[in-house]
Amino acid sequence: MTSKIIHSEEIAALETRFRALFINCLSGFKSVNLVGTVNKNGQTNLSIVNSVIHLGANPPLMGFILRPDSVTRDTWDNILETNYYTFNHLNPQIIEQAHQTSARFPKEISEFDATGLTPIFSENFAAPFVAESHVKIGLKFRERLPIELNGTYLVIGEIVEIHFPENCLSNDGFLDIQLADSVTNSGLDAYHLVEKPMRLSYAKTDKWPSVLH
Amino acid sequence: MTSKIIHSEEIAALETRFRALFINCLSGFKSVNLVGTVNKNGQTNLSIVNSVIHLGANPPLMGFILRPDSVTRDTWDNILETNYYTFNHLNPQIIEQAHQTSARFPKEISEFDATGLTPIFSENFAAPFVAESHVKIGLKFRERLPIELNGTYLVIGEIVEIHFPENCLSNDGFLDIQLADSVTNSGLDAYHLVEKPMRLSYAKTDKWPSVLH
Repeated sequence: MTSKIIHSEEIAALETRFRALFINCLSGFKSVNLVGTVNKNGQTNLSIVNSVIHLGANPPLMGFILRPDSVTRDTWDNILETNYYTFNHLNPQIIEQAHQTSARFPKEISEFDATGLTPIFSENFAAPFVAESHVKIGLKFRERLPIELNGTYLVIGEIVEIHFPENCLSNDGFLDIQLADSVTNSGLDAYHLVEKPMRLSYAKTDKWPSVLH
Repeated sequence: MTSKIIHSEEIAALETRFRALFINCLSGFKSVNLVGTVNKNGQTNLSIVNSVIHLGANPPLMGFILRPDSVTRDTWDNILETNYYTFNHLNPQIIEQAHQTSARFPKEISEFDATGLTPIFSENFAAPFVAESHVKIGLKFRERLPIELNGTYLVIGEIVEIHFPENCLSNDGFLDIQLADSVTNSGLDAYHLVEKPMRLSYAKTDKWPSVLH
């Protein structure tokens, strides 16, 4: 592989859409999720985000980046109204439907209806889950941190409900999301299947890591 | 797949290490990078992080989550001292070495030396890159946002230098990181190879997305 090196001035001089896609690819493979919400009138909304991040296990916190000018705007309005939202992992059977939720549907149309995905509700939890997703997480909104450098926000929620395939959970707490058919994403529009996990032993200074079986 | 559902009380009652691993798996596939830094005396440091996130393309910003009690503490001290750091994608040839950087080596030992990875330096850029990595990003520290809910931080840097395999870049700005051999991570200790990308067309309300070739 021939390596090329570019610097700030060249990055700044790139055509806007070229740069947006290129820079989006640099952060590596991403988590990709459907975010399910509902407004106080009961209308559901579904949007795709590729910025979900683990923040901590105790309390169990996850974040995602909100861009106020984007189609996730309805998502944010609904989170503010109800305090609840869901993350739903993508799998190969729903990639196209999930991608299609990023089209700018009018506010009065639910992306569930527009794409054929199925909302399901749990007891005592306001927001809809995606029935076709195999790993689904229900969150309660906790905080929105402004990132003033570029006008975005880190939206933080606490995990209050988890739906997962029981056969994918190991004795030590490892949930095999590849076995659960979860996929990954790169850039703005690329989806990738993932191969089986290779787990490595806890790293110690006096021995080389070994593969866990 | 038989789906199981658990709630807050059951999550809180999980054994600590089981919960840490389980919750870490829920955020989906993650970006995994080696962070290269150097202190003012010229001693290099290398740590592995699986929380790198794209924040924006203009200015080009990336973030990662800093846990103050972790082995990335030296990384943070060095960023404060020099203002510069690098993200280096993992590939199959360096997964074990990368994982081994998470062992608690004494402060006076460089993880480059301890794992056999090779530091390389660019002109006018303080921090070391990892020679064996195929996608390498040089960043200048911009801001550290405290996440008071759990005592962690979002560390934000601006991309000032990019090293990438020229053959992996498309005309529209898409960098094929799978072709560049980048891998992904899940949970705390699992590494996964990734299959070829399927790119979908920009979503519009009046037609179904098609596969880009």
